[in-house]
Amino acid sequence: MSAGPRIVLASKSPARGALLANAGIAFDAIPSTVDERQVEAPLIAAGRSPAEIAVALAEAKALDVGAAAGDALVIGADQTLDADGRRWVKPESMDEARDQLLTLAGRSHMLQTAVAGVRAGAIRWRYVEAAELTLRPLTPDAVDRYLETVGEAALGSVGAYQVEGPGIQLFERIDGDYFAILGLPLLPVLSWLRKEGALA
Amino acid sequence: MSAGPRIVLASKSPARGALLANAGIAFDAIPSTVDERQVEAPLIAAGRSPAEIAVALAEAKALDVGAAAGDALVIGADQTLDADGRRWVKPESMDEARDQLLTLAGRSHMLQTAVAGVRAGAIRWRYVEAAELTLRPLTPDAVDRYLETVGEAALGSVGAYQVEGPGIQLFERIDGDYFAILGLPLLPVLSWLRKEGALA
Repeated sequence: MSAGPRIVLASKSPARGALLANAGIAFDAIPSTVDERQVEAPLIAAGRSPAEIAVALAEAKALDVGAAAGDALVIGADQTLDADGRRWVKPESMDEARDQLLTLAGRSHMLQTAVAGVRAGAIRWRYVEAAELTLRPLTPDAVDRYLETVGEAALGSVGAYQVEGPGIQLFERIDGDYFAILGLPLLPVLSWLRKEGALA
Repeated sequence: MSAGPRIVLASKSPARGALLANAGIAFDAIPSTVDERQVEAPLIAAGRSPAEIAVALAEAKALDVGAAAGDALVIGADQTLDADGRRWVKPESMDEARDQLLTLAGRSHMLQTAVAGVRAGAIRWRYVEAAELTLRPLTPDAVDRYLETVGEAALGSVGAYQVEGPGIQLFERIDGDYFAILGLPLLPVLSWLRKEGALA
């Protein structure tokens, strides 16, 4: 069902790649080399919102990969998580994953998912969407059992959970688009790809 | 992460089975032998709503399988689709799938997903949830290309689409829980399984 320009996903996230592949989209995955912490530092200093930071990071990744992608349609994406005004990044160790889950347990947090579309070196499209997620109250033992089950996959996502796997058992309530929560708001992305002539 | 009574899914739906399996739930799939058209006939005659009919079918399937499942927790599920007061069932041929998709194209429809929990021969729990879905305007050629892509899988769902595959390209808008749309509202199901002691 596809024709027209090449599609590039500027991400190494297996969840984002699986979403596009399952939707029947042919694409190349080319992770960006952007230093995310460096891109966001001035934005944090300037008091930008989690949604604005997610958009800026999605744009930076798409522009970085787009610089060498010719006429391809390049999709960049980012997620930021905040709970009670505290912003989170991906855990760098299993201890940090454990801390994140124990802190998020029994409360609600917001997940902002941003996506940016780049073609011929220029940003052509951007989109951001919020979801509210509530983890169940969890004992330290329950969190440990979960982390033993999923292993280092926990380090792949901010919040240390993946709702497409056993991580769904951690949740009490999810309000928001499933595709966005997995990292890529699929319907808006498909709409942009059609607009650019990449899909029928 | 599981212990306690055995879990049985009274369905042969690959999508429902995949949802439970991906969530890390160990279960047996035992399809019911209920004649769905026979169960629903008196309900339709009595003017019951699509949601009520879905609940009745979910209950009938869970009770049917539960009759021989001892103390297991048996999950039955059903979906009904209605657009402008017309009720739909699964297409029985590719021609019927084509008709359903062309009729649904460019408009909104409601999908009711019901689930019932049976233990020791008795209904212990029921749940129903609605989603509103809008297909893009589609030409007959676009529908034919889609049906060529997915083949007989189109016959597996009422409406002839699967949003977890290339079917997502048919959609303009989806309002509702992704898990429910796939056929099994996962968070309510997990909550019931925990309540019955099947999950920690």
